[in-house]
Amino acid sequence: MKKVDLNCDLGESFGNYTCGMDEQVIPWISSANVACGFHASDPLVMQKTVALAAQIGVHVGAHPGYPDLVGFGRRNMNVSPAELKAMVQYQIGALSAFCKAQGVKLQHVKPHGAMYNMAGKDAKLATAICEGIAEVDDSLILLGLAGSELLRAARKIGLPSASEVFADRAYEDDGSLVARSKSGAMITDEDLAISRVVRMVKEGKVETISGKTISIQADSICVHGDSPKALAFVEKIRTELTEEGVLIAPMDDIVR
Amino acid sequence: MKKVDLNCDLGESFGNYTCGMDEQVIPWISSANVACGFHASDPLVMQKTVALAAQIGVHVGAHPGYPDLVGFGRRNMNVSPAELKAMVQYQIGALSAFCKAQGVKLQHVKPHGAMYNMAGKDAKLATAICEGIAEVDDSLILLGLAGSELLRAARKIGLPSASEVFADRAYEDDGSLVARSKSGAMITDEDLAISRVVRMVKEGKVETISGKTISIQADSICVHGDSPKALAFVEKIRTELTEEGVLIAPMDDIVR
Amino acid sequence: MKKVDLNCDLGESFGNYTCGMDEQVIPWISSANVACGFHASDPLVMQKTVALAAQIGVHVGAHPGYPDLVGFGRRNMNVSPAELKAMVQYQIGALSAFCKAQGVKLQHVKPHGAMYNMAGKDAKLATAICEGIAEVDDSLILLGLAGSELLRAARKIGLPSASEVFADRAYEDDGSLVARSKSGAMITDEDLAISRVVRMVKEGKVETISGKTISIQADSICVHGDSPKALAFVEKIRTELTEEGVLIAPMDDIVR
Amino acid sequence: MKKVDLNCDLGESFGNYTCGMDEQVIPWISSANVACGFHASDPLVMQKTVALAAQIGVHVGAHPGYPDLVGFGRRNMNVSPAELKAMVQYQIGALSAFCKAQGVKLQHVKPHGAMYNMAGKDAKLATAICEGIAEVDDSLILLGLAGSELLRAARKIGLPSASEVFADRAYEDDGSLVARSKSGAMITDEDLAISRVVRMVKEGKVETISGKTISIQADSICVHGDSPKALAFVEKIRTELTEEGVLIAPMDDIVR
Repeated sequence: MKKVDLNCDLGESFGNYTCGMDEQVIPWISSANVACGFHASDPLVMQKTVALAAQIGVHVGAHPGYPDLVGFGRRNMNVSPAELKAMVQYQIGALSAFCKAQGVKLQHVKPHGAMYNMAGKDAKLATAICEGIAEVDDSLILLGLAGSELLRAARKIGLPSASEVFADRAYEDDGSLVARSKSGAMITDEDLAISRVVRMVKEGKVETISGKTISIQADSICVHGDSPKALAFVEKIRTELTEEGVLIAPMDDIVR
Repeated sequence: MKKVDLNCDLGESFGNYTCGMDEQVIPWISSANVACGFHASDPLVMQKTVALAAQIGVHVGAHPGYPDLVGFGRRNMNVSPAELKAMVQYQIGALSAFCKAQGVKLQHVKPHGAMYNMAGKDAKLATAICEGIAEVDDSLILLGLAGSELLRAARKIGLPSASEVFADRAYEDDGSLVARSKSGAMITDEDLAISRVVRMVKEGKVETISGKTISIQADSICVHGDSPKALAFVEKIRTELTEEGVLIAPMDDIVR
Repeated sequence: MKKVDLNCDLGESFGNYTCGMDEQVIPWISSANVACGFHASDPLVMQKTVALAAQIGVHVGAHPGYPDLVGFGRRNMNVSPAELKAMVQYQIGALSAFCKAQGVKLQHVKPHGAMYNMAGKDAKLATAICEGIAEVDDSLILLGLAGSELLRAARKIGLPSASEVFADRAYEDDGSLVARSKSGAMITDEDLAISRVVRMVKEGKVETISGKTISIQADSICVHGDSPKALAFVEKIRTELTEEGVLIAPMDDIVR
Repeated sequence: MKKVDLNCDLGESFGNYTCGMDEQVIPWISSANVACGFHASDPLVMQKTVALAAQIGVHVGAHPGYPDLVGFGRRNMNVSPAELKAMVQYQIGALSAFCKAQGVKLQHVKPHGAMYNMAGKDAKLATAICEGIAEVDDSLILLGLAGSELLRAARKIGLPSASEVFADRAYEDDGSLVARSKSGAMITDEDLAISRVVRMVKEGKVETISGKTISIQADSICVHGDSPKALAFVEKIRTELTEEGVLIAPMDDIVR
């Protein structure tokens, strides 16, 4: 039976600021990427998010980002590999404390926003992240973009990894995401998006923006819980994957 | 043979800002309190400080503080017990990652500055800190002021604890520190300071500001490495304690 | 004709985080307290909030807070008068730049949250704030709690001031607010709240929690725009004040 | 008589962290670039730095940077022109408050670190900065690298500008600085550095790394006060320029 993980960013609230619909989306996903206080979240939010995941039985991952709260970690920053490694270790450790306190196993690490994108294309940054993770706990799963430098770096050092795909994004012939600035970058038709995902999971293939069919590994699908529309889509994608005979399961059950 | 720990705050530099004389002071101490990024330090400084301690063989503790970098964690802040517990767990976790990455055991936790002072007098805050520590790792040693609520809370929940004394501070009859604002609060005569410490360690007694002799438990002595004068005093206190037949040893060898 | 100002905190969003219903509430108020980046807001939010106020014709004030984003400036912090004065000047200046850039006159300064409360009861802190304001621009109006040390300090140094009242709070016999922890502290009956405000404005009197009638000066009423319910109340209070023959006008038209 | 300004970054301390030798270097310079709290400094440091400049008679400029304290504003960040304009206005305003409070005229604005470098090469960022300055106060002088986009943008919108040169850096044939990573980028021979500066000021010419002579406008020379060696060089460059008959004068006296 084919299996796939549904991952979603959670725990992005901060102090007085609420962000996301964590309680509504969490029953529909299998893995939660929990922000670690650099681009979003704070200690109390992290504690509560781990508690929520534990209660629902969703697996927990660290979601480290750049130290850029006002930019939500979405702005490219020119950090050295040594700094990057240290900031990833710091954030994994911080979240681990809440996991240990609540008897939850930390499953994976997914870099956030600009860190995810920059390390996806830069082997040095990708290696810094993967080595940073492995030094802290080499059983953690690196979750990165299918075909990216992050996955390559993880495989190179023997770190478990999961390959992430996007339902709502078009792909180039080389397997990279079509830049958002280009026409056709977003798959706005929900039924098309879902049928593409089903094919990625069941056949390991996707049609690129040029019409070519390429191979792609879909261990985990990125979904969002930050709006009622996004939430409805998560329910829909989970329901249709299930109807297609695909089992929704956390990364732990897929890449080990 | 009588034993005592010498603890010092390390790793207080931040980005471009250098603070302290870590490399000079570390050979003279037995336990390092490493700042965790809230009142001082950053991920790279933490990584380097743990590496330095590992190289010298000094034991490592977390030194969590209030989220107040500009105030260096020295300003009282009105945080709830739940927030306090979460911020302590976050910081312990962050430092733990650098310890795990470098094969170093985390030995203790010493709250910093205003957090140390406020929790020293407030049972609810003290309990929040001690429970926070115990939930993450109940083998960690809480380092707190001799006779404080912090030590009381640790004992109450069965968390290992070490009782800290100050060479350069006068004591009230109830064992609390004389407020800095009061005349005679600081022991400025170095020889007197050291002879007081020797007595605290060997006899478990100290003369208070009123001239009374009280009992005090001296598991660890707080020293400083932020100036050439402070550094010279650490060398002197270590030398004289050794000459007095007192063994300088990390908390692990004292309170277990 | 009796006049009163309706003031509301605006511009509390931060980066990716949205907070408040600024566009909905602003047509109903006469003065906006704009957060300055310490407890909330960021440069882009400040720029847009001043633009919004300018477009609607609402007068603009600075709303400086403690440097505590995660605590939203609501946690008491132990800052020195010198630090407080400097942080107030910094924030007034920052907002002034957006006012100058958009041809808007800065009307007033209202300290936020814990700063407002602490300075309301502490003459040294109140003086630091008022002197800080006066040094930057002695035509700015200090907006503070009726009967507070803030108003006393302003009057003492000749800084214009406006006396703020709350529709939803009970008063003690000495004119201070009943602590939220006490029963009866909040006036939850909206009609009662409005009738009390009307009396404060028209007669300068309010009934205290003990049943006594005391004098109170109502230059400005604090309203909120952070929920649909709060928004509905602002519309109601404005409508009823107008029906009672009270003119809603910015502080500039009331205290000069 | 030829005139040139000597500018130096001041006020870079932060809370408990001291940085720079402000009191020693300030008597030797004519213009101070005061950090504004984003990459360095805090309100109290800004207040004291403006007071120090006022006392010595050195002219004051704002030194806005990226919101990156841990990176000291030296890391490239991908900010939009609108964000950049707002963060520059915020920082100019903040410093202006301390100037107003102390009766000091704000003379100029020099972007810091990565902001200076990025805007020096990107017309959109340069324009955002210059428009931001002009909107707040169109009499402020923009201080930017000789030949950079910053100066071009200032001239285009009619903002006064001063052209900055470096004593210790080699120049390419197009007038740009030789990248630090290239051999020969730094002029380490102090006498050569000074003779080059004298020629830049008196003849408006400099020899490039390829041996070609090009024109360069030297309104202001960047000097440093962060080490005893840097301090000695400032004294030397000032002394030798004076002996060469060059008058050291603030930008106000040079570009107006």
